[in-house]
Amino acid sequence: MRSDFASADDLAETMNGIGRRARAAGRKLALASAETKDVALRAIAERLRADRVVILRENARDVAAAKAAGQSQALIDRLTLDAGRLAAIADAVEKIGALADPVGRQVAAFERPNGLLIERIAVPLGVVGVIFESRPNVTADAGALCLKAGNAAILRAGSDSHRSAMAIAESMRAGLEATGLPADAIQIVPTKDRAAVGAMLAGLDGCIDVIVPRGGRGLVERVHAEARVPVFAHLDGICHVYVAAAADLDMARTILLNSKMRRTGVCGATETLLVDRACAGTHLAPLVAALLEAGCAVRGDAAVQAVDGRVTAATEADWRTEYLDAIISVRVVDGLEAAIEHIETYGSHHTDAIVTEDGDEAVRFLAEVDSAIVVHNASTQFADGGEFGFGAEIGIATGRMHARGPVGVEQLTTFKYRVHGSGQTRP
Amino acid sequence: MRSDFASADDLAETMNGIGRRARAAGRKLALASAETKDVALRAIAERLRADRVVILRENARDVAAAKAAGQSQALIDRLTLDAGRLAAIADAVEKIGALADPVGRQVAAFERPNGLLIERIAVPLGVVGVIFESRPNVTADAGALCLKAGNAAILRAGSDSHRSAMAIAESMRAGLEATGLPADAIQIVPTKDRAAVGAMLAGLDGCIDVIVPRGGRGLVERVHAEARVPVFAHLDGICHVYVAAAADLDMARTILLNSKMRRTGVCGATETLLVDRACAGTHLAPLVAALLEAGCAVRGDAAVQAVDGRVTAATEADWRTEYLDAIISVRVVDGLEAAIEHIETYGSHHTDAIVTEDGDEAVRFLAEVDSAIVVHNASTQFADGGEFGFGAEIGIATGRMHARGPVGVEQLTTFKYRVHGSGQTRP
Repeated sequence: MRSDFASADDLAETMNGIGRRARAAGRKLALASAETKDVALRAIAERLRADRVVILRENARDVAAAKAAGQSQALIDRLTLDAGRLAAIADAVEKIGALADPVGRQVAAFERPNGLLIERIAVPLGVVGVIFESRPNVTADAGALCLKAGNAAILRAGSDSHRSAMAIAESMRAGLEATGLPADAIQIVPTKDRAAVGAMLAGLDGCIDVIVPRGGRGLVERVHAEARVPVFAHLDGICHVYVAAAADLDMARTILLNSKMRRTGVCGATETLLVDRACAGTHLAPLVAALLEAGCAVRGDAAVQAVDGRVTAATEADWRTEYLDAIISVRVVDGLEAAIEHIETYGSHHTDAIVTEDGDEAVRFLAEVDSAIVVHNASTQFADGGEFGFGAEIGIATGRMHARGPVGVEQLTTFKYRVHGSGQTRP
Repeated sequence: MRSDFASADDLAETMNGIGRRARAAGRKLALASAETKDVALRAIAERLRADRVVILRENARDVAAAKAAGQSQALIDRLTLDAGRLAAIADAVEKIGALADPVGRQVAAFERPNGLLIERIAVPLGVVGVIFESRPNVTADAGALCLKAGNAAILRAGSDSHRSAMAIAESMRAGLEATGLPADAIQIVPTKDRAAVGAMLAGLDGCIDVIVPRGGRGLVERVHAEARVPVFAHLDGICHVYVAAAADLDMARTILLNSKMRRTGVCGATETLLVDRACAGTHLAPLVAALLEAGCAVRGDAAVQAVDGRVTAATEADWRTEYLDAIISVRVVDGLEAAIEHIETYGSHHTDAIVTEDGDEAVRFLAEVDSAIVVHNASTQFADGGEFGFGAEIGIATGRMHARGPVGVEQLTTFKYRVHGSGQTRP
């Protein structure tokens, strides 16, 4: 793509300027009261509704350009806004405003023998960089979540959604200003130049504290490979349902169908079914039949192929594949340890479930499977910030640091220690 | 330095093997009970005492080599063990064993309207890479802290302390094995080749979850520049004491002298004194005199130079300098906002203190200074895991992610979500 800048230095200076303004805005936002932030979020929601003509016009330009460029129907669906979708975006912003303020919470407190009172207090992370692709709603969702947690946001829209994102961000900045908060708390990178992403991944000279990629595997892979700052993300959601010998068959069938087929394209959708050999005789055929009848293609090992002629052979690659489609891999395993070993070998540490009436076995599964979310007797599709009661999420993280699982407003904060003394010195 | 390996591939294979063994050991350690870990730590302490002849002999070889290489007396002091120091190392390991187990804590729990019970449970981080320089005690301290938190440790000793570290690690591995835990939970990188550090900073193919550098500024700078995995560290400890107009002069003097002079070489030592212009007339001269009388060189702005002829001129560079010595920079500022602005401009987000009897001013300082530790009416030298009641620390972090301030065993854990259902599916 042609650069919007005369030189790489110009781009760097523009991006670093965005970083410095975000840091300054973040410092002010960190001190804003819960009430001020909530007033701002309501003002932003109102502004998004009031500006609908402009936003939908800019979105229509994005959609026309995407069509002219021959983009896929799926991308155009993700990109397209209408009055209903825009109203839902504004409502979501208002709901984020109504969440409990995550900033200022006393996370811990302890008094020392010398009388020092030490508090651990939640404070904003600082500046969050969000890199996304075609969904224009990310601008509003991510901007609102960052604002609620007292963080400045630097948003980089995919080139397809650039005009829509700019229009939404303008409404949000107007809402911030109307409330007396710095407009630069929400900034859109004003260029489609891909080097801007590189600048963000390098951290904008210390002015970005964490990067959140929102998009497909290619984006997340690039972010993981290049980021010099922490990242909240998941690369794959290779989620498992393990049906143990002590599983209730009806419950197993219901949970499996929901885990796989409720929506196949979400990261919490199950991709592999593991069945304990001890119950394969009774449970395997009905589970496979239920999947096939629900329209799911089944790829299985020899034992699974033996129960139904419609099952095709699973290869080694299948165990490592996130289909995001109506396809499942199925394997018969020799009990709990083999199931855990399979999940640890092939899984992606996202969400894994066991179905069993045996409480001890459930305890072991929940302890030994090293995933962000481990589930007993429920669907893997509960892997979602809304379902966890977080109100909304900026993404789901499978890394181990700071945030794991759904990343809601609470995970967008860090902490500081406040030490209250009365003249104490250290001996 | 000459490489111990025939080729770069050999080094990579050796290092990746260490990583894989650490990951496997970490998985076992994560499931060890609190009691087993504590028995192991006691066994390690006993083994360190029993093996003192071997450890002191290997240390003597390190010391002799360092002397022959013309290393500084300061380095040789840090490197040298004797019976007393080794006994203290063993005692410290035993004390870490006596801490509360940080693993398995229920950090949060909530029941959803659909009956799902969701718990957030502390689990080990996984594998911790520790890169250190000449202090042999780091092997035991860091290894024991990682073990207590259920983490495997990969330790890379500086070339000066390599033999001492290997000997200490051997005793620790024997203690692990005697308890039935995997010896590979504590591994020393068996080469002085500097490329091994590079391999660790790259994360050993996904087998290191966090890096902790323990050493001088050069090491920490290299780690920050090259690490592809999260880092717990602080680069500088440019700590401030701000004496506000409402400060009690006696308290200010006592806190200042302790903050600066108790030990000048620690990261929590104060490097800059800020005095509110409103009390400079009464407070500045006695504070400067106290510093000078305590043997501290004072570099000041014009106002500070005016109160005592022994004060030399502070340059712009002084405000950015961590002296780690009996030197202090002193500046008169126009009140709280100017003090905060100075700290945000020149500080390192480590530890900063205000001395004042004005509660409102203290609240503002603690809220607005964006440092890991903010202190009211106490010494900055309390910035220490032991003083915070954490028992011990693996380091002090000034980054914003995951751990901030003293990094104790609790900060060496992350969390997972355990979801308990009774057949729930997502609508």
